[in-house]
Amino acid sequence: MAHRVSYRVYYEDTDSLGVVYYANYFKFFERGRSEYLLAKGHDVASLNAAGVNVVVHAVSAKFRKSAGLGDVVDVVTSFGVESAYRGRFSQRVELDGVVLVEADVDVVCTNPEQTLIELPDAIRATAED
Amino acid sequence: MAHRVSYRVYYEDTDSLGVVYYANYFKFFERGRSEYLLAKGHDVASLNAAGVNVVVHAVSAKFRKSAGLGDVVDVVTSFGVESAYRGRFSQRVELDGVVLVEADVDVVCTNPEQTLIELPDAIRATAED
Amino acid sequence: MAHRVSYRVYYEDTDSLGVVYYANYFKFFERGRSEYLLAKGHDVASLNAAGVNVVVHAVSAKFRKSAGLGDVVDVVTSFGVESAYRGRFSQRVELDGVVLVEADVDVVCTNPEQTLIELPDAIRATAED
Amino acid sequence: MAHRVSYRVYYEDTDSLGVVYYANYFKFFERGRSEYLLAKGHDVASLNAAGVNVVVHAVSAKFRKSAGLGDVVDVVTSFGVESAYRGRFSQRVELDGVVLVEADVDVVCTNPEQTLIELPDAIRATAED
Repeated sequence: MAHRVSYRVYYEDTDSLGVVYYANYFKFFERGRSEYLLAKGHDVASLNAAGVNVVVHAVSAKFRKSAGLGDVVDVVTSFGVESAYRGRFSQRVELDGVVLVEADVDVVCTNPEQTLIELPDAIRATAED
Repeated sequence: MAHRVSYRVYYEDTDSLGVVYYANYFKFFERGRSEYLLAKGHDVASLNAAGVNVVVHAVSAKFRKSAGLGDVVDVVTSFGVESAYRGRFSQRVELDGVVLVEADVDVVCTNPEQTLIELPDAIRATAED
Repeated sequence: MAHRVSYRVYYEDTDSLGVVYYANYFKFFERGRSEYLLAKGHDVASLNAAGVNVVVHAVSAKFRKSAGLGDVVDVVTSFGVESAYRGRFSQRVELDGVVLVEADVDVVCTNPEQTLIELPDAIRATAED
Repeated sequence: MAHRVSYRVYYEDTDSLGVVYYANYFKFFERGRSEYLLAKGHDVASLNAAGVNVVVHAVSAKFRKSAGLGDVVDVVTSFGVESAYRGRFSQRVELDGVVLVEADVDVVCTNPEQTLIELPDAIRATAED
């Protein structure tokens, strides 16, 4: 089952068009991925300290509707393993059950020297069957 | 009694020194003010729609310690009326009861034409006695 | 010929992994689009004032390498009309001629009520032949 | 003579009130400090690599007027040594010669373990007489 976490939209998230600035949805998505991993027992800071950085390799996103100041949006996240080196987070931002933005976020893992490493078992094991 | 709300520190909040970027604490403070007003029955978007913008006139802040990735910080907020035109939010960001950053944030109210107006009764009434 | 504009990477752009935070590349891309339009004689604020909002409908991006603090990156932008309603910005962020991130950014135009409108001639005319 | 550097205001800088979000002026100030140091021969990344982090200890700012989308603002920066451990950047953001925001930004230096160190000569020497 997909992981869900909610956030209120604050001024910091909006722009002069009166709605959430497009780049800021990627902050919401990253929060969702961090909370997903945490819910599976892995906090990002500890992963980093253990020499594992989960980094975004590619994103594909569609922006359908806008959220505005004060809205409480849901970030919905699921994860699957695509290959030995790549995982995919399928994510969306919803408002009252309506999808605002949806994204596929492909991630890889690197060591602190920014060299590609295989997805650690700890990460692979968080994927849904 | 001061208002409290908690936030996790995500990658978006940090910088290459490994801790929260100083300007981002002001985002946490703004979240705290928005939640303070909401807890008193006033959401910021409705205030704006009613022609009242609560804007920051001055800030004074001290940065004592740093928060890092994954930390859950508390934003603690209280409010007082300073004059017919000015209110002051006294705020701090805490981690496990230790003050990281503290700030006085002076606000005024403007109408949509950015003209100064007196603090509306709705705002004044949220102040602690 | 593609449009180019350069920006230095500041602390605000980085995160605790020591490189530019992935969502912030979309800020660089938006700067590039704003400068592209400006170079063609259209500033975004005036477009908005005239009732035309250029909004992102979809993005597809690949992150190949990272920029770090102090790097001066180039944002390279070209634009084409895809249909009566949609244009595509092809963009990349380069460092010393090496592509770090590349993106296709599909935009549509809306009026202030957020209703889709045809791409105005002023926007269409900026496309390369 | 004070150091000056200019930046255009992009969507990323604004919020739903139609002007620059208050916390984002502190990003402009930080850019100004980085460019100040660079103009004096010290880039921040190299300072960090040498074990010197220049961190903000306190800020005091007044917000007088607003910048909006497309404005090109000047960040004006000067620096003085306050004590063996503390320096002060006096900064302002101007638009067409009018001061929008002014700030005193007190900085200290720390080593990578976040321990306070004396201001290095390299930093002290950048101060105006």
